[in-house]
Amino acid sequence: MASPLIKATYMATRPDRDPELLAENIAREQSLELTRSLIPDDIARRLLGRVLAVEPTDEQRWRLIIGYPVELASQQVGQLLHLVHGNVSFYPRIRLAGLELPPELLCTLPGPMAGLPGVRSWTGIRSRALLMTVLKPRGSTPKSLAGLAGAFASAGGDLVKDDQNLVEHDLDQFRDRVMLCAQAIEKAQDKTGRACLYLPHVAGSGSHLERQLEYVARLGLGGVVMCPWVLGLETAATRAREHGLMWLAHPALAGSLTEPEDTGVSSAVLLGTLVRAAGADISIFPGRGGRIQSRHDDDEAATCHTLTQPLGPLHPTLPCLGGGKTLAEAPDTAQRLGNDCAVLVGGDVIAQGDNLAVKLKETIERLEQTSEQQRPGA
Amino acid sequence: MASPLIKATYMATRPDRDPELLAENIAREQSLELTRSLIPDDIARRLLGRVLAVEPTDEQRWRLIIGYPVELASQQVGQLLHLVHGNVSFYPRIRLAGLELPPELLCTLPGPMAGLPGVRSWTGIRSRALLMTVLKPRGSTPKSLAGLAGAFASAGGDLVKDDQNLVEHDLDQFRDRVMLCAQAIEKAQDKTGRACLYLPHVAGSGSHLERQLEYVARLGLGGVVMCPWVLGLETAATRAREHGLMWLAHPALAGSLTEPEDTGVSSAVLLGTLVRAAGADISIFPGRGGRIQSRHDDDEAATCHTLTQPLGPLHPTLPCLGGGKTLAEAPDTAQRLGNDCAVLVGGDVIAQGDNLAVKLKETIERLEQTSEQQRPGA
Repeated sequence: MASPLIKATYMATRPDRDPELLAENIAREQSLELTRSLIPDDIARRLLGRVLAVEPTDEQRWRLIIGYPVELASQQVGQLLHLVHGNVSFYPRIRLAGLELPPELLCTLPGPMAGLPGVRSWTGIRSRALLMTVLKPRGSTPKSLAGLAGAFASAGGDLVKDDQNLVEHDLDQFRDRVMLCAQAIEKAQDKTGRACLYLPHVAGSGSHLERQLEYVARLGLGGVVMCPWVLGLETAATRAREHGLMWLAHPALAGSLTEPEDTGVSSAVLLGTLVRAAGADISIFPGRGGRIQSRHDDDEAATCHTLTQPLGPLHPTLPCLGGGKTLAEAPDTAQRLGNDCAVLVGGDVIAQGDNLAVKLKETIERLEQTSEQQRPGA
Repeated sequence: MASPLIKATYMATRPDRDPELLAENIAREQSLELTRSLIPDDIARRLLGRVLAVEPTDEQRWRLIIGYPVELASQQVGQLLHLVHGNVSFYPRIRLAGLELPPELLCTLPGPMAGLPGVRSWTGIRSRALLMTVLKPRGSTPKSLAGLAGAFASAGGDLVKDDQNLVEHDLDQFRDRVMLCAQAIEKAQDKTGRACLYLPHVAGSGSHLERQLEYVARLGLGGVVMCPWVLGLETAATRAREHGLMWLAHPALAGSLTEPEDTGVSSAVLLGTLVRAAGADISIFPGRGGRIQSRHDDDEAATCHTLTQPLGPLHPTLPCLGGGKTLAEAPDTAQRLGNDCAVLVGGDVIAQGDNLAVKLKETIERLEQTSEQQRPGA
């Protein structure tokens, strides 16, 4: 019986050989990586990647659709990533632009432990878009970071993440800082009667990483921030799950894959499908506006789509727009993308100073209005 | 006292803003990620990245040299990677082209456990370039892969690696295959009286990865193959070290960073300096010739250089050219790059069939001749 296929769509720009041949070469490179004549026929029948379509899309570009037998992913997200973009990352002007995972694979992948519904349930925000801030800069005293966390939570903010630059070699310093920030948020929660989800950043490897995760779990916090392209995508997912923690995937390093025109991997696949399959509960990506923006116009809608559309038994992942967004931009973002997203506002929250409470209240009211307007029948 | 600096050289192609401003923006993005006016002066003095040079190199390109205070790397390879290429990976047309690590950082980084001298010591090959093959294709019976391993080792080959597509979900299958290949190589060693280093591929995460490493260590094998851009660079390094195993870094996925003209990270930095700092004993990269080649002419020499030049207390890492190289190309490679390298020949070894012993003997003799010619005073 034929094996279900993982379908990968590659865009080839100014192909360096006949497009049909190129498609066959990629299908073979990524599956069995051997000259065709040296592959025994029974192995080829079972495991060789198959060319499903080769179509020109404009004068310079071709769409190559390859089907990989599902066994090749070995039921591992790391191996899936490797399968669809391992050696082919060295081929000239090939970009992985689409990825379809068959149900047989989806039911073996972790997916988010809690995902978007989990974050909504933790924060109690049922329908509007969420507001997140970031604790920085590195070098600040724990007290000063805790002050910022407390001010944001007191003013009604939904999510607080550590900046991914907050990394301590000394674990006692990590514990002191996280404890103070968690306490400040708890105090604010007591005042507002609302939950604010605090996500400390954990980094490193081995027992060093382990002890950070243990501590966060012991404090009863809901989750952590991790950089999966530094830590390893599957590594990050497994570590968080072992501790029953949600996790936010920060895209550091991923820009080298998502941003080029004709190489790498699209944001919708990398920071959408793959990050969700691995099990991130929240995925940050740049989209439009702010200091860091995607160069691909359709990235933010496409990435939101792959994070939240029905995908086998997998929970949706909460899409989060980051990269220097402002409070003023948040309601527009929710207008554009719908309510099932979060907006990360860092510097602009710090810049508000004493006006923070007023500005945050205004912003949240506008997010609520947007949510009302978008209700079916509204 | 001023902190020692990590010096990162970025090439900016057709800068999207004034080059001086761009350099300042990158220095700030990668260190404290906050509007300058919001950074307290004492923190800026200690931790803000500094612009060291801004120079045009041709009509389109500028060289931006940034100094990051060494504390920002937190004595972690993962954080170092993040520091020099995290968010800036999303900036348009910025490529990390050079990296200098100060002695104060180098002495805190792991570096290779055994490195090039360790591989030479294991194999007993003191001066010539080394020959490696790869066990594939996936889907072959363990017996057939073991046959290939045994034939290569019997004919005098130096190193055998698993193809990085060899990934079993079922650990018993992994153990059976690795055991058979290890036995075949041991038998060959008894015959030749020479050691051949076998490196099984390990993949996945958590206890699944752990059990593979345990098994390889228990068999008394010298090392493993890992894909650090899938597993996480620091994760891979830490896991191998915990088991006292050498490791070969396979560059799967890294092409999206190394191959573009004007984005990403140069091969010399990514597959050279950073992979060595993390502690890989062998680093594979494409270089010239074969099925997969680097598009950057100077990559192979530059990457060999960063892997083997003096670098604080760190052992050199054995450079290994891979990507469909042939036996006939191996001696030329050693001529070009010197003897301190390995050449990975996969399909062409399988293609030799019954001629393998003769062809391998010929190739090794030519590598020995090259080595003699390159001896000082020869």
